[in-house]
Amino acid sequence: MKVGFIGLGRMGHAMARRLLDAKHDVGVYNRTPEKIKDLVAAGAKPVTSIEQAARYGSAVFTMLADDAALAAVAGQKGGLLEALSKGGIHVCSGTHGVTIIKKLTAQHKGRGQILVTAPMLGRPEVVASGQAGVVIGGPADTLSACKPLFDAIGRRSFEAGSDPASAAAIKIANNFVLGCAMEAMGEGFSLTRKYGVMPAVFYDVMTDGLFNCSAYKIYGKIMVDESYSKVGQMAVLGLKDADLALAAGGAVGVPLPSGNVWRDRLVGAVAHGDGDKDWAVMALEQARASGLA
Amino acid sequence: MKVGFIGLGRMGHAMARRLLDAKHDVGVYNRTPEKIKDLVAAGAKPVTSIEQAARYGSAVFTMLADDAALAAVAGQKGGLLEALSKGGIHVCSGTHGVTIIKKLTAQHKGRGQILVTAPMLGRPEVVASGQAGVVIGGPADTLSACKPLFDAIGRRSFEAGSDPASAAAIKIANNFVLGCAMEAMGEGFSLTRKYGVMPAVFYDVMTDGLFNCSAYKIYGKIMVDESYSKVGQMAVLGLKDADLALAAGGAVGVPLPSGNVWRDRLVGAVAHGDGDKDWAVMALEQARASGLA
Amino acid sequence: MKVGFIGLGRMGHAMARRLLDAKHDVGVYNRTPEKIKDLVAAGAKPVTSIEQAARYGSAVFTMLADDAALAAVAGQKGGLLEALSKGGIHVCSGTHGVTIIKKLTAQHKGRGQILVTAPMLGRPEVVASGQAGVVIGGPADTLSACKPLFDAIGRRSFEAGSDPASAAAIKIANNFVLGCAMEAMGEGFSLTRKYGVMPAVFYDVMTDGLFNCSAYKIYGKIMVDESYSKVGQMAVLGLKDADLALAAGGAVGVPLPSGNVWRDRLVGAVAHGDGDKDWAVMALEQARASGLA
Amino acid sequence: MKVGFIGLGRMGHAMARRLLDAKHDVGVYNRTPEKIKDLVAAGAKPVTSIEQAARYGSAVFTMLADDAALAAVAGQKGGLLEALSKGGIHVCSGTHGVTIIKKLTAQHKGRGQILVTAPMLGRPEVVASGQAGVVIGGPADTLSACKPLFDAIGRRSFEAGSDPASAAAIKIANNFVLGCAMEAMGEGFSLTRKYGVMPAVFYDVMTDGLFNCSAYKIYGKIMVDESYSKVGQMAVLGLKDADLALAAGGAVGVPLPSGNVWRDRLVGAVAHGDGDKDWAVMALEQARASGLA
Repeated sequence: MKVGFIGLGRMGHAMARRLLDAKHDVGVYNRTPEKIKDLVAAGAKPVTSIEQAARYGSAVFTMLADDAALAAVAGQKGGLLEALSKGGIHVCSGTHGVTIIKKLTAQHKGRGQILVTAPMLGRPEVVASGQAGVVIGGPADTLSACKPLFDAIGRRSFEAGSDPASAAAIKIANNFVLGCAMEAMGEGFSLTRKYGVMPAVFYDVMTDGLFNCSAYKIYGKIMVDESYSKVGQMAVLGLKDADLALAAGGAVGVPLPSGNVWRDRLVGAVAHGDGDKDWAVMALEQARASGLA
Repeated sequence: MKVGFIGLGRMGHAMARRLLDAKHDVGVYNRTPEKIKDLVAAGAKPVTSIEQAARYGSAVFTMLADDAALAAVAGQKGGLLEALSKGGIHVCSGTHGVTIIKKLTAQHKGRGQILVTAPMLGRPEVVASGQAGVVIGGPADTLSACKPLFDAIGRRSFEAGSDPASAAAIKIANNFVLGCAMEAMGEGFSLTRKYGVMPAVFYDVMTDGLFNCSAYKIYGKIMVDESYSKVGQMAVLGLKDADLALAAGGAVGVPLPSGNVWRDRLVGAVAHGDGDKDWAVMALEQARASGLA
Repeated sequence: MKVGFIGLGRMGHAMARRLLDAKHDVGVYNRTPEKIKDLVAAGAKPVTSIEQAARYGSAVFTMLADDAALAAVAGQKGGLLEALSKGGIHVCSGTHGVTIIKKLTAQHKGRGQILVTAPMLGRPEVVASGQAGVVIGGPADTLSACKPLFDAIGRRSFEAGSDPASAAAIKIANNFVLGCAMEAMGEGFSLTRKYGVMPAVFYDVMTDGLFNCSAYKIYGKIMVDESYSKVGQMAVLGLKDADLALAAGGAVGVPLPSGNVWRDRLVGAVAHGDGDKDWAVMALEQARASGLA
Repeated sequence: MKVGFIGLGRMGHAMARRLLDAKHDVGVYNRTPEKIKDLVAAGAKPVTSIEQAARYGSAVFTMLADDAALAAVAGQKGGLLEALSKGGIHVCSGTHGVTIIKKLTAQHKGRGQILVTAPMLGRPEVVASGQAGVVIGGPADTLSACKPLFDAIGRRSFEAGSDPASAAAIKIANNFVLGCAMEAMGEGFSLTRKYGVMPAVFYDVMTDGLFNCSAYKIYGKIMVDESYSKVGQMAVLGLKDADLALAAGGAVGVPLPSGNVWRDRLVGAVAHGDGDKDWAVMALEQARASGLA
């Protein structure tokens, strides 16, 4: 298929490369053209405006850092809303709040355009390897039309629902379950330490048994090693995810008490100067609260 | 080795059978003799008092339902404290509070006896199959002496520390991490449902990716199926575990905010009449709090 | 003094009237001119645009419902930022988030204008009676210059600090302490009810002793009478206040766990259809969580 | 009336003195006889055993430090349960858990004795001045019979209900509402400090308005002055109160999320070595969590 692509950061880059590798025709736009050189070398066509990206093919991807960037790309003069043709498809990847997705769904619809959401499950390197899952939300026929794109990018697609917000909600909730798992692990490490248990032992117990999965293995390992300076996701971005989850819950009447605990721990970590550490630093912040650090 | 065994409920039964299968000589005592018939048929020697069990071999296991039962078996007239010989070993399995373990450690020590803790990781059927982990805590030489017993029972032992409370703490913390994971999952299900996502889809997303482990697969499945009436562990017992965790934290200065959320959910479930359901019913209670049930 | 006034809802109305009664010269602007008729009858001068209000005197008040309204009034074409003269003072009353106040402070400063904040402590009827407190924040000399205005409106002014956000923070924190007090009271009512205590008795105990103040008397009374339909402040607006508090904490690294509980209770109340009830309905929502309603 | 009195600590002392001043005939028993010298000088009759105290008059007061002391005084050989005559009344003051009160109610009933509860509202010095409230719970006719005693001790009695646990619950819930108020205040102080507000200013705002009552004035003042070393109630005892509240909630299906926050703050304070400071030290612990201390 012929598609535009806006937002070629690490994640967008990995996605676009997967599309190119599957012989799709991709028109790439990034504010910093340097970042798309290698994609162009690999066959992507450089375009020089959002408008051109929007009109490059039958669909246009956005993979943007946050809601503000998405609002700007969509709503600015010459932005997606103005530029996308009638019947055009906006495939919105990235982790976005349900409120902006709901608003954008209506705005596109009002112009005869279609929004689908397709957040990635997995870090950029996982996406690059083709092992990521893709959660997709939107009208069934549009999702079906875009299937070759999703198949090119990911290992597996999960159909969330006909409302684009459904996929956004899954992405947010998946991060939420992860953040809460990390928080509980951190609390468990503090608790066992006070009874003389080496963190590595409690890690072994957890990951040998009920928690033999990457959420606990990856982040538990960081906690055991206290290697918070080698950053996967920064604490401040974890806090952003927590805020997205709580806002999503607040908007539809779902109290998320575990999410509050997760958020508070990150707020505390930031207060103690660890905002730019890996968000597993929650375990350190819990240790502080326990008089252990 | 020659050992006594007190408390042949489902879990004790499975442990004793493992010991017998490994050719250990086991003297079994249970208040209800009916329950040990098949063990006797399999080679166990029935004994008729705690005292006899205590003196049957070089060590005596207890596998009791709660702290009250343990306090009674140990402290009553003719109980373990009185009956165990000098140098005798009390192997305390089961999930017990750190306070009683610390007290019992001192009491045994005061009489020249030795307490080791050996809680099981896994349900009785897992123990029966030899696939359970065993967390062990106590003086290194005693743990070493008991190694053949632990090897007979479990797939793997985890040495928690020289303080018997260390193994108790690990068992409590492992349950805690599980309970908090279940709570967060329940919140995630409510959140995604409000955005039109089928629970089975969110379950797939979680267990296909970061949470591809039994904690999420087993309990997430129960939540998806709402099969709370087929009870693995009752909500009221989950609440007991939560209380053990919070008490363990309170005793050493570890706030456990995720644990509070876990406990509150179970308190609410009990308030709504679900105390005898499987503790995964937390997800239903969260749904109620979200106006979904 | 000669001042403009934008936003003549119930609260703005009461404030403007106080200014008029103290012989200040007030130019009033409201989107719905009907609402200012009586003020004009009382001596106010009607103006027909934000611009005219901004230039009516040496200062201009805004008393707006929320951050969105404030952003619009300040930032729109012909809005306060454009219209206010150099050296002009914007007295921002109302309950606003610290983020918008900080942004607005910078924007005004960039144009040589001055922002001061002056949120009211008390409901409109209290303001009308001259019994309200006024929290004021901004440069000391500007606060000093505006003193006759604050004296006209309120019984007492509280100088929060030289940063306009300081007064906003106090207003938010005062609401926060109130919301948390109400939540705890609601929990206390559920707890005592389960032990056979009539709510009126627990109310008497509280308000006769440690809690002999309006926060507990006013809202406790509503809880005892379950008169949630007679609305002072709606639950959804209480939720807005909770969100302001949590956002203010998040922005500067202050975890507010009591605030989370307060917010969750309101989220639950909204989920159960009580968003338009008085926010004391938190006690009913707590009763639901306790299986009492 | 003729009554026995067991437990002449600071609170018991103040109560007994009030009884004596009202010309009641009081037989006093304390493990440390030194402590009752001045009461004897004031007309009290010293008795030398629990048994004698129990049989001294038609009722016997206990004012004991905790549930363990109460269990011992009631249950030991020669304790209240054995010694109290048929129809004898045990007036249990002090702050006790609902579980022990329920158990004791049944035990006394089983022996034809009657338990009533009469916890004090107020510190010992308030009781001494006759200004304390008394919460009373038990059979109406017994409460009526004891009325002269309660009138002698306190300013006002609050009839909680016919179940002695009702008065215990009110006492626990009143402490709970206080602890949660203090916690929220502490959070409010941290929040406003981060926006440049002097604690004394926020204190003024609170106590001048909605929170013009002793709970906020007394404890807010300690927080402003950071005078945590001048101890009214120690943090560890505040923690005991929090545990009583949470246990009371857990026993009857009432989640108390504000109570969790209160308890966690005290657990943290103890972890940081402040267990023997005044429990208002919660505000300092919150400041720590906010990177302010």
